[in-house]
Amino acid sequence: MLLAETAPLTEDRLPDVFSSVESEVRSYWRGWPTVMQSASDSWVTDTEGRRYIDFFAGAGALNYGHNNPLLKAPLLDYLASDGIVHSLDIATEAKQRFLETFARVILEPRGLDFKVQFPGPTGANSVESALKLARKVTGRESIVSFTNAFHGMTLGALSVTGNSMKRAGAGIPLVHATPMPYDNYFGGVTEDFHWFERVLDDSGSGLNRPAAVIVETVQGEGGLNVARIEWLQALADLCRTRDILLIVDDVQMGCGRTGPFFSFEAAGIVPDIVTLSKSISGYGLPMALTLFRRDLDVWAPGEHNGTFRGHNPAFITATKALETYWQTPDFSQETIRKGELVRARLDEIEQRHSGVTARGRGMAQGLKFDDADQAAKVCRTAFDLGVLMETSGPSDEVVKLLPPLTTSEPDLQKGLDILDESVSAILN
Amino acid sequence: MLLAETAPLTEDRLPDVFSSVESEVRSYWRGWPTVMQSASDSWVTDTEGRRYIDFFAGAGALNYGHNNPLLKAPLLDYLASDGIVHSLDIATEAKQRFLETFARVILEPRGLDFKVQFPGPTGANSVESALKLARKVTGRESIVSFTNAFHGMTLGALSVTGNSMKRAGAGIPLVHATPMPYDNYFGGVTEDFHWFERVLDDSGSGLNRPAAVIVETVQGEGGLNVARIEWLQALADLCRTRDILLIVDDVQMGCGRTGPFFSFEAAGIVPDIVTLSKSISGYGLPMALTLFRRDLDVWAPGEHNGTFRGHNPAFITATKALETYWQTPDFSQETIRKGELVRARLDEIEQRHSGVTARGRGMAQGLKFDDADQAAKVCRTAFDLGVLMETSGPSDEVVKLLPPLTTSEPDLQKGLDILDESVSAILN
Amino acid sequence: MLLAETAPLTEDRLPDVFSSVESEVRSYWRGWPTVMQSASDSWVTDTEGRRYIDFFAGAGALNYGHNNPLLKAPLLDYLASDGIVHSLDIATEAKQRFLETFARVILEPRGLDFKVQFPGPTGANSVESALKLARKVTGRESIVSFTNAFHGMTLGALSVTGNSMKRAGAGIPLVHATPMPYDNYFGGVTEDFHWFERVLDDSGSGLNRPAAVIVETVQGEGGLNVARIEWLQALADLCRTRDILLIVDDVQMGCGRTGPFFSFEAAGIVPDIVTLSKSISGYGLPMALTLFRRDLDVWAPGEHNGTFRGHNPAFITATKALETYWQTPDFSQETIRKGELVRARLDEIEQRHSGVTARGRGMAQGLKFDDADQAAKVCRTAFDLGVLMETSGPSDEVVKLLPPLTTSEPDLQKGLDILDESVSAILN
Amino acid sequence: MLLAETAPLTEDRLPDVFSSVESEVRSYWRGWPTVMQSASDSWVTDTEGRRYIDFFAGAGALNYGHNNPLLKAPLLDYLASDGIVHSLDIATEAKQRFLETFARVILEPRGLDFKVQFPGPTGANSVESALKLARKVTGRESIVSFTNAFHGMTLGALSVTGNSMKRAGAGIPLVHATPMPYDNYFGGVTEDFHWFERVLDDSGSGLNRPAAVIVETVQGEGGLNVARIEWLQALADLCRTRDILLIVDDVQMGCGRTGPFFSFEAAGIVPDIVTLSKSISGYGLPMALTLFRRDLDVWAPGEHNGTFRGHNPAFITATKALETYWQTPDFSQETIRKGELVRARLDEIEQRHSGVTARGRGMAQGLKFDDADQAAKVCRTAFDLGVLMETSGPSDEVVKLLPPLTTSEPDLQKGLDILDESVSAILN
Repeated sequence: MLLAETAPLTEDRLPDVFSSVESEVRSYWRGWPTVMQSASDSWVTDTEGRRYIDFFAGAGALNYGHNNPLLKAPLLDYLASDGIVHSLDIATEAKQRFLETFARVILEPRGLDFKVQFPGPTGANSVESALKLARKVTGRESIVSFTNAFHGMTLGALSVTGNSMKRAGAGIPLVHATPMPYDNYFGGVTEDFHWFERVLDDSGSGLNRPAAVIVETVQGEGGLNVARIEWLQALADLCRTRDILLIVDDVQMGCGRTGPFFSFEAAGIVPDIVTLSKSISGYGLPMALTLFRRDLDVWAPGEHNGTFRGHNPAFITATKALETYWQTPDFSQETIRKGELVRARLDEIEQRHSGVTARGRGMAQGLKFDDADQAAKVCRTAFDLGVLMETSGPSDEVVKLLPPLTTSEPDLQKGLDILDESVSAILN
Repeated sequence: MLLAETAPLTEDRLPDVFSSVESEVRSYWRGWPTVMQSASDSWVTDTEGRRYIDFFAGAGALNYGHNNPLLKAPLLDYLASDGIVHSLDIATEAKQRFLETFARVILEPRGLDFKVQFPGPTGANSVESALKLARKVTGRESIVSFTNAFHGMTLGALSVTGNSMKRAGAGIPLVHATPMPYDNYFGGVTEDFHWFERVLDDSGSGLNRPAAVIVETVQGEGGLNVARIEWLQALADLCRTRDILLIVDDVQMGCGRTGPFFSFEAAGIVPDIVTLSKSISGYGLPMALTLFRRDLDVWAPGEHNGTFRGHNPAFITATKALETYWQTPDFSQETIRKGELVRARLDEIEQRHSGVTARGRGMAQGLKFDDADQAAKVCRTAFDLGVLMETSGPSDEVVKLLPPLTTSEPDLQKGLDILDESVSAILN
Repeated sequence: MLLAETAPLTEDRLPDVFSSVESEVRSYWRGWPTVMQSASDSWVTDTEGRRYIDFFAGAGALNYGHNNPLLKAPLLDYLASDGIVHSLDIATEAKQRFLETFARVILEPRGLDFKVQFPGPTGANSVESALKLARKVTGRESIVSFTNAFHGMTLGALSVTGNSMKRAGAGIPLVHATPMPYDNYFGGVTEDFHWFERVLDDSGSGLNRPAAVIVETVQGEGGLNVARIEWLQALADLCRTRDILLIVDDVQMGCGRTGPFFSFEAAGIVPDIVTLSKSISGYGLPMALTLFRRDLDVWAPGEHNGTFRGHNPAFITATKALETYWQTPDFSQETIRKGELVRARLDEIEQRHSGVTARGRGMAQGLKFDDADQAAKVCRTAFDLGVLMETSGPSDEVVKLLPPLTTSEPDLQKGLDILDESVSAILN
Repeated sequence: MLLAETAPLTEDRLPDVFSSVESEVRSYWRGWPTVMQSASDSWVTDTEGRRYIDFFAGAGALNYGHNNPLLKAPLLDYLASDGIVHSLDIATEAKQRFLETFARVILEPRGLDFKVQFPGPTGANSVESALKLARKVTGRESIVSFTNAFHGMTLGALSVTGNSMKRAGAGIPLVHATPMPYDNYFGGVTEDFHWFERVLDDSGSGLNRPAAVIVETVQGEGGLNVARIEWLQALADLCRTRDILLIVDDVQMGCGRTGPFFSFEAAGIVPDIVTLSKSISGYGLPMALTLFRRDLDVWAPGEHNGTFRGHNPAFITATKALETYWQTPDFSQETIRKGELVRARLDEIEQRHSGVTARGRGMAQGLKFDDADQAAKVCRTAFDLGVLMETSGPSDEVVKLLPPLTTSEPDLQKGLDILDESVSAILN
C-alpha cells in the first residue's frame, strides 16, 4: 500500500545502530530514511509495512526484479541440497552449467568468440582486470576514458572515473588515464572525435599512446548521457584503425537494460573487452564477468585472482536467468517497448514543465533538471509518495529511472504517476 | 569415500567448456582437475562421487565448514520469505541485526570503539578503502607494506602485495608503497625494525613519510610466515610514536583462524584500521568489512561506494555465525587446541624427514619444503588420496593447511594421515 | 665567403673522434657535417675556412650575435681581473649589478613586481623550478600543457613536452600533465578553449584540477605555431578566474625574439611565473632565470638549488646586454621591422610555390612544407650554399629561421636569397 | 688579509637588491653575508677587501682553484679570437680537442671503453640522462638509490635524492625509486647488503626489479659518508650478477677530489654509467658529461638534448686542465698526500674534543658534530675568521672541507688553524 497519508520519514527516527556503528560513508540511505525488510518483483516493503515501487533496481543489479520466483526456486534447491557455495576458480557443476549456457544463449548466437574470466564479484573488479589485460596485451600504460564516466572505486577503476569528489578520495594523484569528450559533450557544436583523433594522430600532442579506450554506451552515474549509435561506431572504428583496444563497460547497461543483452549490440560493434556485473546473477547476488577476444587471453594462471570469483549460488540464478529471458528475443523487445512507454511519459512531463528534459535509452531513462536541487527534491517527494528513485550526473541534476525490466505495465504506470505528481509538486 | 584406488585425475578428462570458454587465468583448478558438485562440513564431493577432505576451506572463506546447517537454516528462511537480497547501503533489517550483533558480540567485549564500513564484498575492496582512508586522514600518499605480503589484485591492493608475478600483471609501475622486512626475514640475524626505524627517523633516508603500515599477523599467501607477538607489539608502538596509521589486514587470519576472533588479539594491540572478509559471512558468501577508529570516520557520503556492499543473505549468515560461535570463548579455545593437534603432527613429520619444516599459528599451519617442487607434488598426491590442500609462499614451497575450524577431530586426523602418507610418498 | 662551388660536405670526412667517442645522441650536427671554429656576429666559420650565415643563432641563445664585441669587452675585462667566476647562490658584485640592472631596465618599466630566482643555468631547470613552485603554492599536482609544446628534457620538463619520441626517452610513464589544444589546433574550426573550459568547469570531467598552465606564446620547437593575442588574453583570463597559475615559458621567445623583451607583452598579459634562459646572458653562456609574482616566493632556503646557478661571466654579459639593447625601445622596434622584412620575403616564397606556408612572429619565422621531407632538403641545400637553418615541428616539416636579432639587413637579405634559392632547387 | 679584528658581518648590511629582488630560495649566502668580488687560487675577496680562504671550492666545482692562470690564458685567447662560444651539439674544434684529450688522457689509460654524452651543463642533467638511458636499455622503470644520497633537483634526479626537505619541494609524490642502506648505515652492526640482496632475490619481496643502482662513492651532501672499498666492490658484483646497471654519480667526487680522476678507481670497479660535472671544466664553467659503456649507446639522435650542451669556453679550460693535471700521476698523489695532512689535523681535533668525529676521503674531509648546531656555529665562526666552509648531512651536522686541490700547503695549514680555532671557540 502506498502511503502518502503518513508523515515524512526522517533519519532521526531510525534505529540508533546505523548512526552509531556504521560509517558516515553511506549515501543512498540518506534519501530513503527507513529500514527495508522484504521485496518482491518491483516492490520493496519496510519494517513498518510501507511499500515502495522500486525504480532503482539496485542501481541496475535487479533487472529481473526482487526475489524473482523463477530464479528463487533453483536457488533454494541448490542451497538446500548442499551444492557448492564457494569455489574460487575450481571447476564446479554450477559453473560448468553457467559457462555452457552463457556460451550457447549469449555468445554463440551473437557470433562473439570471447573467453570468459571470473574476476571477482564486482564491476570494479571486472574493470580492474580489463585494464590490466589491455596493458599487458599492448605493453602500453595509458587509458583513455570519457568525461563523466563511472567505472568503480578501486584505484585502477577510479583513475578512469570522472567524478571529482570520488577521485579526490584516492588520496594519491590518479594518473595513467586521460579523459576525452563523451558524445554530445559540446552540445553538438563540435564535430565528433575532433580532439581525440587529432591528438592521437599528432606525434607532438603530448598524449601518451593509449592501451585502450573504456566507454559506457549510456553513462548511468554520469547522468544518463546517451552515446549515439554512429558515435559508438566511429569510436570502434577509430580504435581499430589505431590499434587501441576498445573496452565497453556494460556493468550497468548490460544484461538487457537498454533492450539487447549487451548495450553495444544496437551499434553493431564488437568490443575487444567487455565488463559485466550487476544483473548478471539475476538475483542481486555478487558476480562479475570479464569477456575478451579469444586471442587476448594472455593471462598467466593466477595473475589476477580473488576469493569470491566462484560464487556458485550466483551461477545458479545467472544460468536460470539466461534460460528464462534470453533464449528468444521477446524479453529484449518487451524492454524496448516499456522503455518507449516510459519515454513517452517523460516527454510529456518535459513538455508540461520548463527546465526539465527527458533523456535515456531503453529502460534507463530520466529527467534532467536545469536546477539540480529540484532533482533531489523530486526524488524525496517520490519517496514520501512511495517510489524509490535516485539522482545522478555531475551535479546530481538528473532523476534516474532504472525500474526492473520485469515491472508490470500497471506498476510502471503507477510509478510514473507518482513521478509526475512529484515533479509537479516541486516545479509548480 | 576416499579413493586411492582410482587412477589419478587429469585435466584432459574434464568437460570441454572450461578450456574452450573460461580464461587461462584460472589456477587452483589446475591442481584439482575434477568438477565439484556438493559439500558439507569438511567434505567436498565431485560429480563422479569422489569425496575429498577440505584442508583449504575456500582459502579461509569457509571457517565454519561448507553449508553449515546452523547457518543454512536462517539463510533458507530469509530467502524463502523474500527478505531483501540486494541493498547497496540502504538500511535493511538484516543489516541492522548484523550491526547490532557485531557490536555486541565482537566490538564491545573487546573494547574496540570502531566504526564499520561495508566497502564492497571482497578483501581487496576492504584494503582499497583502508588505504584511501589512511591517505585521506593523514594527507600522505605512501604506504609501508611487508615482504611477501598479499592484500589483493585491484590496483591499490596490488601495490602493497609482494608477489612479483602478480605485480607484473598491473601493466603500470606500482608505486606509492615501500616494502619493509617482515618478522624473521633475515632468519633472526638482524634486530627487529632496524631498517624501518632507521629510515623513518632519518630525514635524509629518501623514504617518503608513510600514511600507514599494512600488515598481516600471519602471512598466509606469503608462506605461513608468523610474526611474533613482540614484533607486532613493537610495530604497533613504532606506528603510534611516529604518527603512522596501523592497518591490520585480517581478511584471511581474522574470524577465528588463529584462535581469537581477530588475529591481533593475541598481541594485545589495537590497530587503527582492520580489514575483514572471507569468513565474515560464515557461509562463503561475498562480504567484507572495514573497521576503523571512530575518529577516523572522515568519509564523505558516497566517497567510496559499490553495488554489492549490501549483500543481505551474507548479513543473515554472518549474524548467525557470530551468535553461534562467538558469544563464549569456547570456539576460540577449541581452535587453539585443534591447531596444537595439527602442529604436533606436523612437528612429527618434520622430525621424520629432512628438508621439511613445520610452521604456522592456530589453524593456519603448514610444511615448508626446502625443495619447492616437493610441495606441489605432496599436494597433488594428497589430492589423489582425497585431501584438498594448496601451496603458498614466493616459490610455492609451503603446503598450507587451512581446514574449516569446525572440522571434527577424526576428520582432522584422517586428513593429516593422508598428508603424512603423501609426504612420505614424495620424500622417500 | 659563401661556397656553393665546393662539393657537399658529408659526415664521413669529419674527424673520427666524433663518431668513435661521442654518443649517437647528437643531432644538429647531422645536418651540418663540418667542424666549426670561430664566429662573429651572424657568421660562423669552419675549420676549412668556409663561412656560414647563421639563421639558427644557437636555437635562440645568440640573439645578439656571436661574440658581440660590446659584450666581449667587459667579459674579457672581468675574466682578466680575476672576477669571481663560480658562486652558487653567494652574493657577488656581478650578480648585484645584474639584479639591479634587470630590475631597473626590465621589471620596473613594465610594472612587473617579480622576484628573481637563479634556478640552474638551463631552460629545463627554470621550467622544473616553475613547476615545483606552482605545485607548492597551490597544493595541486597536475599541470596543463599544450599540444606540440617543448619545455625541456629533464623529467619534470619532459612531462609537459609534447614530442612523442622525446617523451618515450623518459623510460617511465610521464604523468601529472594533461595536454590541451594550442591555438589554431583545429584550423580555426573550433571555438577557443571550448574543451579546456568545459573540462575545468565540469566536476565530472575526470580532469585533475591543475596547479598551473604552462604555455609558449610562439611554439618554436613545435613548428612556429603562433598563439593569437586574443587567445593569450583569454588564457590568462581563464587562469585568473579559475585560480590556476599561468606560467609563460619564454626561454626561446623571450629576450626580444618576437620584438618586446618578453614575448607576452604584446598581449598585455602578466603571467604568474616566467621562465627565461637561452639569450638572457646575451653571449651564449649558460644562464637561466625564473621570475614570479612576489607573493609566490614561498621557497624555503635551498629547496631548489644547483651548482651552476651563479655563473658570473654570464651575469657580466647579461648586464651589458640589458644596458646596450633594452634601455630604449629602439632595439625592439628594429626587431619588429626586421621580422616584417623576413616575413615579406617568406610570403613571396609562399606565393611562388604551392605546398609552402609562411608562419611566425617577429624574428621567429619559418616556412611550413606540406611534404615534410622537403623541409630537411631545403635546410641541407641551404647549408651547402652557406646558411645554417634547422627544421622544427612534430614531423620536422617547418624550416625555422631564428637569425640573430643584430643581423644586418644585407646579411639578412643574403641569407633569405639563399633560402629562396634552396626552396626553388627542391620544389622545382 | 684575514680579518678577525672586524665586527661580524650580518645580512642586513648587504645591498638591498638581494632581499628585495632575489628569491628567498638562496641558501649558501645566508652563512656568508657579504658580497664577493674577485678570487684567485684558494682566496676569495669581497667588495670591502676582506679575504677568505676557500675551503668550499664551489661545492667541488673549483678543484683547480679560482681563476687558475694556466687555464685562464687559453680561455682568454679563445674568447679574444672569437672562438665559437655556443654550439649545442654541433661539431666544433674546441669540442674535438676536448674529446681527443679526454679519450687519450682519461679513458684510454684506464681501459675505459666509454662513449661520451654532453647532456646539458649541470650534474642534475647528467643524472637525468643516466637514469633515462638505464631505463631505456633495460626496459625497467625502478631505480635503487641510497640513504642520504644527493643527485640533483630536477624531478628525475630528485626522486633518487634522500633529503626530505628537498624531496617535499617536488610537489608530487616522488616514485620509481627505492632507497637502500648506504655503507655503514647501521654502524657496522648489520652485514653488508643483507637487505638489498634479500629483496632482490626474493620474488615475493615487493621490490620492483631495478633498472639501475645509482651511488656516490663518498656522499658529500649526505655528510661525507665514505663507502668502503670492499662495499663498492660488492655492490658492483651484486649489480653485475643480477643484471642491474651500476651508475656512479661522480659529479662531486670525480675530477680528482678523492685522489684518482674517478673516485671509483680506488675500488677497481668499472661502472656502467658515470656522471661528471662540477670540476670537469676546471674553471667553474657549466659543463657536464655522461659516460657509459659503448654498447649502452642506444640513444636515438636528439632523444636527450638541451641548449647549453656545447659550451665551448668550458671545453677549452677542460682540455687544458686534463693536459695540465692528468697526464702524470703526480697531481693525484699530491691530492692524496694533502688529504692525509688534512685528516691528520682533523684526527687531532677529534682527539682534543668530545662529540666531534673526523671523516672523509682524499680532499673531501670533515668533522661530524654530535650536536648539529655546533657545526653551523663552527662554520660561522670560521667565516668571521676568514674561512669559507659549509655544513652537510641530514641534520647539517657535518662541517665539510672541500679545499681546491691546488691549495698550497701553507694556505691549507692556515685554513686548518682557523678551523681548529673555531671548533675550540664553539666547543669550549
